[in-house]
Formats: sequence, C-alpha cells, structure tokens
Amino acid sequence: MSEAPATIAPPERLLCGPGPTNVDPAALEAMRRPMLGHLDPHMHGILTELVDLLRSAYRAEDAEIVLPLQATGTSGMEAGIANLVEPGDTVVVGVNGFFGRRIVDIARRWGAEVEEVHADWGEHVSNDRLLDALDRHPHAGLVAVVHAETSTGCEHPLAELGAAMQDRDALLMADCVTSLGGVELEFDRWGIDYAYSCSQKCLAAPPGMSPLALSERAMERVRSRGKPVPMSSDLELLDSYWVERPAAYHHTAPILHIYALHEALRQTMLEGLEARWARHTAAGKRMQKGVLGAGLELLAEREHRLAPLTAVRVPEGVDGKAVQTELLEGGIEIGGGLGPQAPAMWRIGLMGPNATTETADRVLAALTAAVERQGAAVAG
Amino acid sequence: MSEAPATIAPPERLLCGPGPTNVDPAALEAMRRPMLGHLDPHMHGILTELVDLLRSAYRAEDAEIVLPLQATGTSGMEAGIANLVEPGDTVVVGVNGFFGRRIVDIARRWGAEVEEVHADWGEHVSNDRLLDALDRHPHAGLVAVVHAETSTGCEHPLAELGAAMQDRDALLMADCVTSLGGVELEFDRWGIDYAYSCSQKCLAAPPGMSPLALSERAMERVRSRGKPVPMSSDLELLDSYWVERPAAYHHTAPILHIYALHEALRQTMLEGLEARWARHTAAGKRMQKGVLGAGLELLAEREHRLAPLTAVRVPEGVDGKAVQTELLEGGIEIGGGLGPQAPAMWRIGLMGPNATTETADRVLAALTAAVERQGAAVAG
Repeated sequence: MSEAPATIAPPERLLCGPGPTNVDPAALEAMRRPMLGHLDPHMHGILTELVDLLRSAYRAEDAEIVLPLQATGTSGMEAGIANLVEPGDTVVVGVNGFFGRRIVDIARRWGAEVEEVHADWGEHVSNDRLLDALDRHPHAGLVAVVHAETSTGCEHPLAELGAAMQDRDALLMADCVTSLGGVELEFDRWGIDYAYSCSQKCLAAPPGMSPLALSERAMERVRSRGKPVPMSSDLELLDSYWVERPAAYHHTAPILHIYALHEALRQTMLEGLEARWARHTAAGKRMQKGVLGAGLELLAEREHRLAPLTAVRVPEGVDGKAVQTELLEGGIEIGGGLGPQAPAMWRIGLMGPNATTETADRVLAALTAAVERQGAAVAG
Repeated sequence: MSEAPATIAPPERLLCGPGPTNVDPAALEAMRRPMLGHLDPHMHGILTELVDLLRSAYRAEDAEIVLPLQATGTSGMEAGIANLVEPGDTVVVGVNGFFGRRIVDIARRWGAEVEEVHADWGEHVSNDRLLDALDRHPHAGLVAVVHAETSTGCEHPLAELGAAMQDRDALLMADCVTSLGGVELEFDRWGIDYAYSCSQKCLAAPPGMSPLALSERAMERVRSRGKPVPMSSDLELLDSYWVERPAAYHHTAPILHIYALHEALRQTMLEGLEARWARHTAAGKRMQKGVLGAGLELLAEREHRLAPLTAVRVPEGVDGKAVQTELLEGGIEIGGGLGPQAPAMWRIGLMGPNATTETADRVLAALTAAVERQGAAVAG
C-alpha cells in the first residue's frame, strides 16, 4: 500500500438482519469512558458486576462458571466442544439448520462420534427423537441443540428437553446466540449444562464477546478430562482471571467491549428481563402476523417460531437478493439464507432496540413494497 | 442480582503499563460511526483496506494470509500452534520470560514434543543455541521465539535468526505482540513464517483483535495436515471470510473494533511506519537513560533492550507494589512483574500515543519521586 486510504464512512443502517443489531445507544456511550488497564483495581468491580449481570440474564445463579469469552459466538460453541468432549466420545446433535450443522462439524474436528438427529429447515428437532438417540447411545456424553436457530427462525423446546434429561448422565449444551436477552431462557431451572451466546443480538452490545455459562456437573466433566484443553478456552484459567482476580493473568480483556456489555446488560435489567422477552415477542409476533397477512410464507413451523428472528420464504418468481438490495438502498438491512443448503428466504431480526412493533411495521412495509415491485418486474 | 448496578465510572488514566495503551483518539472516534452488518457490501471495502493496511504494518506483502483474528494475542499464539503443529511434532522454543513459557505450555497442550532453549529473564535467547537445538532435532517442524518479550523488555535478534534459518525446513514463528507498529519488523524480508500480534499496544487500537501473518510455506504446512484444525482458527475459512467475501460466512466480525483498527493503522501509515518506529525508539531510549541516570537498574541486557517496554528492577528495600499504587493514585498506570517466576520489577510501556519523550519524562519523574518516598519510608 503506497498511501493510506481515506477514513471510513459507513452509511446509516437500520440493522434488521440476523445480527448484529444496532447497538444500544447507552452501550455505545459507555465505550467513550476512560480506558483502564485490564489489571486496574477499578476493573475488578466492573468485571464482578458484569459476571453478576450475566448470571441474571442467563438465570444462572447456580451455574459454576459464567463469563464472557473474548471471541465470537462460534468460539463459544467450540469452547463447549473442546472442554466437554474427548476424542472418541459420542455426541448427539439436533440439526435443523446451519448452526446445528456447525456443531456437528466442530464436534467431528475434535474427534467426536456424532449421532445427528435431523429435521427439515424450519421444523424443530423432536425431543423424543433426541431421547431415542440417547437410548441407542447410552454412553453418549453430550446432547447439543440450538435453542434459537438463527438460520431458520425456529425455537427448540429446550425446557422440555432439560426436564426429560434430568435423570440422564449426558450433559445438555444449548446454542443461545439468538435467545439470550430476547427469549425466555432459564439456565438453572431447565437443567442446561453449557450455554453460549453472543453480545450483538438481543443484548444489543457490539459484536465481539461470547457469554458462557457452565453447570457444576459440566465443570466436573472438564476437571476429570484426560486430554488438556486449549489455553484460549481453559475455563478454570478464565474463571480465575474474571472472578478471583487479581490473582491470575490470562489475557488482555477487551476493555471497551466490557464497558459496552456491562451497560447493555444493565439496560436489560433496568427494563426487566421478562419485560424485554415480552417486547421481543410482541415485535416478532407483529412481524410474523404481518408477513402472513401479506400473503407471504414463514419458514418456521407455527408452534416453534422464534420471536427475534423471522425467516420468510422468497415467493416463486421473486429475486430475493434484489429485494434485499432494494431495502439496503433505503437504509434497511435484512438477511438472506445462510449456507448452500438454505432454502430461498429473507431473515428479519428484531432485536435489542429494534425489537418494537413500530420497527416491525416499518420493515414489513418496505419488504412488501419491494416484493410487489419485484413481482411486477418479473410479471412485466 | 436484585437490581441493576450503577453505570460504570472509570477514572482517567495515563496507561504506561505493558498494555493496553491509551487508544488513539482518531480510532476511538471511528468507533462512533454508524454500525454496519458484517455482510454489508460496504464492509467489503473496509475489510479489504484493513488487510492491506496490516500487510503494510507487518511488511508482509508476500505473505499468503494476513488478517486480524477476533481474539486475544494469546489466541493468536495458540492459532499458530494449532495450525502448524501436529501431535508428536518437535518444536524448538526460546524461553526467556512469561510469553516464551506460555508458548511451551500451549505447544504441550497440543501434543508437541518441546525442546526449550532457556535464557535468564532479561537476557536474550541466543540464536546459536536455537540453531544447535535444531541441529540436534533435525525433524523439528517449528522454531518459536518472542520478538518482544513483554514480561522482561528484551528484544530478540529476529532478523538474524530468520537469515540463519533460510535453508532449514523448520518454520519460524514470532510473537510480535509488543513489536508490531513500534519496532522494526520485516515479515517478508526476515523470512518469518507465522507472526501474531495484538491491537492494543504499539498500534493503539482497543484490545480485542490479534493480527496474524502467514507465509506461503506455512500455509502449505497447514494444507498438508492430517488432523483438522479448530473451526475458530481455520485459516482457510477465515481467509475466505476476510478476503474472498462475500463468498463465505465464518463468524460475525467485531465491526466497531474493525473500524478502530482500520483507523489506528491508517494513522500509522499517515505518520509513516519508520517514523513511528523511530518515535517509539526515542521515547524508550529516553526512559531507559533516565532510569539508569536515577540510579535504578534495567532488567534487559544492554544490546537487546526493547524500546516500547522498559523493565526496571525494584531496588532492595522498596515495596514495588506500593510504588505502583502511588503512581496509579496520581493517574499513571505502570505494571509489575508477570507471573510467579518474575523478578521484582516495574514494567513501563510507552506505546502508541504515549510513545513520546514528554511522557517518558513525566512517568520517570513520578516513578523516581515515589521510589524516593518509599525508600525514605523504609529507611525511616
């Protein structure tokens, strides 16, 4: 590069795709406060509060470890596999979209024997079939499901799965990337052993952190491993760094992301967690009702629709990508299908500050207008 | 948690510890620009420019892959081992401080046979001894050294090691966490195969990303592996996401950190990379001369002193931690020794906006005044 490029000039967007969502303005403001060193005594209080806030958001007061990994949601997924699975272990995975498929891929990379329980994109994975797979593989150590499948808008009946697994030895791992802070989620009460999420969806902080929660028996599994875990996802070291500090150095924490996540979670608690779930539900239902009212089809089956993410089938004869581009030119981002196996769809996320019925109406109006124009163009 | 805590109120600090440093104001300002989705067409240009800027900063125009990992510097270290080493491989590691020790720990976690070449804290690891180790282990696949040992303030003669390894099959991995953007570093010309760094030191962006560079022969090694790599550090997938996009989804990029790192690198290029190295050198030399002039001792041996990080021995009878606390109360952060093996020391970082002779003078004056008071307290 012979000379420096111009400074960046990103256009304004209403982010209603599968995430990231627009950041809570209070969280953005928190990032402008004075930068501290990660070992500053003042940071101790901030980290302790952040862990407490995360426990509240996950409803994980009894969890042994709760902390945000400084990494992507996918790294949170991989940290679970890397810690809870050893080569040759059997893992049962529910697969009904891109992220279930990714759990399978990662589990295989780490040497697991994977028993896949499939459902079509948009269908939920039946708990009975997951339990049958567990019956057939009584030594399986882990059952993994996607609580909120961001690639299809389908919600897994996780409370029921947790209840049904109460007397089983297998651990329960749940992808909560698009559920934490936007959908009912009860880590302790439902009997989840490992949950991971991200910062940039219903919590409305910037992308960059993956909040994790582990039960006591999950940590027993980690402690009794034969093979060591990666340094980057060594949960005992991470816990010393986050909770017992200043005892232990592990890495340099992402200070400004911590400020933002602290504030985003604080806003969540000020709103009230259940009120926030209700707001996401109301916005999602409004969108889904509107989509059906406009004669379009939803991908997810009726009883298992996820509120924060609505997947809409692209009608025959309409160029889905062109519709997305038209919306983007008007300042609204919505998503398309994810990965080569995805049916033609749009994905509309109403998360964080965008989880309002007003935003639902605005995006729906833009979508239906673009579909009509596209349809007319195709017909004409 | 029954109610939300107060919003955070961190005090102002001049961050002159081992990092993070204070963020470049222009980089902070860039984080306030409108948030884009990570698959937004507008992001393509930003990511492409960021990769080009990183190539310039690393002097790695010929490298096969250059990109920032969304993770800590330690994850950058671990990504190198996870990609370049297979279980049973022999790795030669230079160890003269905390981070060399950490490379050994990580390499063992990933199943390597490690040949450690030691030097005392503050001494450099001799290239001749590294080459001897390689002669004794002709099938060793990797030699790893710490270019800038943040725990001791010692700089490795990396150019010479690269030149001496030119006809060897082993790859050369270098920890550039405290050198990138502050110390002469020539990825291509010196023959480095894998380098990793961080965003929060001499580049003066916020902590949260780990810039990597890989040579062509390093990527050949990765492609010919038997055992799969972790998804989170799958460099071919990451490269598709960063460079070939929008072909491939891998994860949700940390948009605001990308804005900040883009701007921090842009400022580096506007200043001129060599001018920036010279500024860091001048500030470090001023500090080191001042420390010696005040009758204090430096940890690092004379010929291998690192400019951005000065380690000062705590004199007999002085409480090092009390001195740090006194400085912190005056708004200046400096560091102490890292890990249980560290001799008693202070670590003073002059990086990014703090790499000036004025800041060196200010910190030195505060340090010597505190030491005098502490010494008087001890004597009295």
